[in-house]
Amino acid sequence: MRESRLMINFARLSSHLREINAINRQVDGSCCRLALTDPDRQARDLVLTWMREAGLNVHVDRIGNLIGVQPHGETNFPVMTGSHIDTVATGGPLDGTLGVLAGIEVIRTLDEAGIRTKHPLAVAVFTNEEGVRFQPDMMGSLVFAGGLPLQSALGAADSDGAVLGQELERIGYAGEMPCEQIRPRAFVELHIEQGPVLDRENGVLGAVENLQGISWQEVIVHGTSNHAGTTPMNLRHDAAYCAARTTVFVRELAQRMGGTQVATVGSLRLVPNLVNVIAREACFTVDLRNTDERLLQSAETQLAEFIGDLAGSEGVEFQMRRLARTEPVRFDEKVLESIETVATDLGYPIRRMTSGAGHDAQMIARLCPTAMIFVPSVGGISHNPREFTAPEHLVIGVDTLLHTLLRLANQ
Amino acid sequence: MRESRLMINFARLSSHLREINAINRQVDGSCCRLALTDPDRQARDLVLTWMREAGLNVHVDRIGNLIGVQPHGETNFPVMTGSHIDTVATGGPLDGTLGVLAGIEVIRTLDEAGIRTKHPLAVAVFTNEEGVRFQPDMMGSLVFAGGLPLQSALGAADSDGAVLGQELERIGYAGEMPCEQIRPRAFVELHIEQGPVLDRENGVLGAVENLQGISWQEVIVHGTSNHAGTTPMNLRHDAAYCAARTTVFVRELAQRMGGTQVATVGSLRLVPNLVNVIAREACFTVDLRNTDERLLQSAETQLAEFIGDLAGSEGVEFQMRRLARTEPVRFDEKVLESIETVATDLGYPIRRMTSGAGHDAQMIARLCPTAMIFVPSVGGISHNPREFTAPEHLVIGVDTLLHTLLRLANQ
Repeated sequence: MRESRLMINFARLSSHLREINAINRQVDGSCCRLALTDPDRQARDLVLTWMREAGLNVHVDRIGNLIGVQPHGETNFPVMTGSHIDTVATGGPLDGTLGVLAGIEVIRTLDEAGIRTKHPLAVAVFTNEEGVRFQPDMMGSLVFAGGLPLQSALGAADSDGAVLGQELERIGYAGEMPCEQIRPRAFVELHIEQGPVLDRENGVLGAVENLQGISWQEVIVHGTSNHAGTTPMNLRHDAAYCAARTTVFVRELAQRMGGTQVATVGSLRLVPNLVNVIAREACFTVDLRNTDERLLQSAETQLAEFIGDLAGSEGVEFQMRRLARTEPVRFDEKVLESIETVATDLGYPIRRMTSGAGHDAQMIARLCPTAMIFVPSVGGISHNPREFTAPEHLVIGVDTLLHTLLRLANQ
Repeated sequence: MRESRLMINFARLSSHLREINAINRQVDGSCCRLALTDPDRQARDLVLTWMREAGLNVHVDRIGNLIGVQPHGETNFPVMTGSHIDTVATGGPLDGTLGVLAGIEVIRTLDEAGIRTKHPLAVAVFTNEEGVRFQPDMMGSLVFAGGLPLQSALGAADSDGAVLGQELERIGYAGEMPCEQIRPRAFVELHIEQGPVLDRENGVLGAVENLQGISWQEVIVHGTSNHAGTTPMNLRHDAAYCAARTTVFVRELAQRMGGTQVATVGSLRLVPNLVNVIAREACFTVDLRNTDERLLQSAETQLAEFIGDLAGSEGVEFQMRRLARTEPVRFDEKVLESIETVATDLGYPIRRMTSGAGHDAQMIARLCPTAMIFVPSVGGISHNPREFTAPEHLVIGVDTLLHTLLRLANQ
């Protein structure tokens, strides 16, 4: 099989990763390319150059997605890969960026080998995946898939009042192409896992079959401030205690439900937050995730019931606000089978898994058969300068992407 | 009985309270006279004038305590009252200030009536009771009672680096008199309750028989940060969860122990404090109080054992640091009986109680027979512009102080 001898140029891929991550590198080694800032523009300029070197026609759509498409093929429906190049404020070198640069490297490798597939290949850079500066996250892929009107995305403002549409123009990436102009035939995204599962299994690849549905709620407890010395225990309306009870409850809830259910209280603020004053207010977040929408709804209901009971027994008031909610996504079985077959043929161990994080692929899954390939990340660390994937795991991940795209584009 | 017809001049006392609380009054109505600031100096100047108008010789000792002593009497050991006039940053009009101004009013009333007691009367303003700007709190009374070396108190620095001894000189209250020059024969402090007990009993007076021992500890949990979506529940080392478990435990501990035991987690900070990240660090405080030293120690031990077990089961590390520790104080039975007898003779309902807050009287109790009189504070509110005591409760409180001092000074 001719294609199985194809090898990506890992030195070139590494050099591109180094070059893009040198932009606005922070003293602690972290990458800071917030969406539509000057560092994002510089990174886009590099990617645009590399796309052209790979023989791609480059388009920019109206939400600033950068899409390189091969100029040949028998149809207008490319098999697409891609991800994002924006980062959080203290990002690592691979989150998102790997998927974009690997896609370009795959296409360039095929181009250099003179291989032309039945359907053209394409690689996409989606605008503002991280959602740090402008909300919502995964914005570019969401607009591309028709899940958010273009105008509301363009009108998003950051905390300094800068408007996304104007920032796109400022950095020169306010494209003319309608977002729905290019419709992929299939989509495969390569990404680091951002969790510890594959690393603990000694570097097996992941065929991502689904994404957890995510429910983020903010809970505010309104109690009564009082003196910690003079207020009898049975006369307290202690917001901190109520927050603590809820934190313990969500842990028990997840353990009781089992399966893929996870639950986390990661953020909490007390008022007035003093050693000798019973807190009058506690504001905290609850992060619930499950791959089964019915079970996720059940977790939400059980939380609401617990809070209702606690409000009654403690004499406090609760206020709940939805911060984010996505339904679980199930990826395409045929694309998953292609990924697994390809990896197994190449001799790479691979396992099915769930993604705990959100990715552009979950938006594109609305449009076409989609799945993801995960490479291990050491210690599960990401959004951190210590984010790292061993070179040999990068190579087998990109190699699997190459042969999967080749297979899908010749079907 | 001649003395029972004596009436303080409540209009004059009210006018003095208004005048002193007009100093540096904040827009929200709160009083801001942090120790040894210019507003504290202005308040001291007023008190000094009023002490002289009451016929007192005024002394300033080396820690800045302002002590007015009657120039007559058969001994050199005065029966003393007093409190403090410094406030927290958002203080109310009565906390401390009432005890000082009431003491002056009582002595002036007796002076105007031509009544001279066997032992002289004295009123003290103790430096830096609140402990907001300089630590420790109750500093002036602590140094006066020999519980803290003068030099370490004078060397205390605020968060801007200003040194207490220099600030005393700057405001003109670095006195020459040794702190141990004046030794009281007995001490009675009038104060607002700063708790809800008397207010809920429709304005009965309090004869304070003891003060809780206070144990403040800071607890830091060192866990592991990880992604809230990708980290299975059984692989978590969640600092926020451990803080929550401890918060729930201390509530249960206090309820199980009963009696005067109270326990509060009032302050908590998570790192990194993000909705989708398991906290790697939680820093919180535990406030334990009991009037029985043996039980307070038992509460501390039970907390330490709980935390040791939790560290083992959750795979986290705990660090504990003592922030403050005072032993319980029991006031003098004879002084208490005097207060109760006087109040009952005057027809004022009075009950024994425990003080949940710290007061200068607990320091003076090391030197001489001591007790306190509490007047109700509405809703138990203090350290707040809404701090309020009904005028009729102020009158019966000051009246009880007057006749108690008279009784003690003629014994």
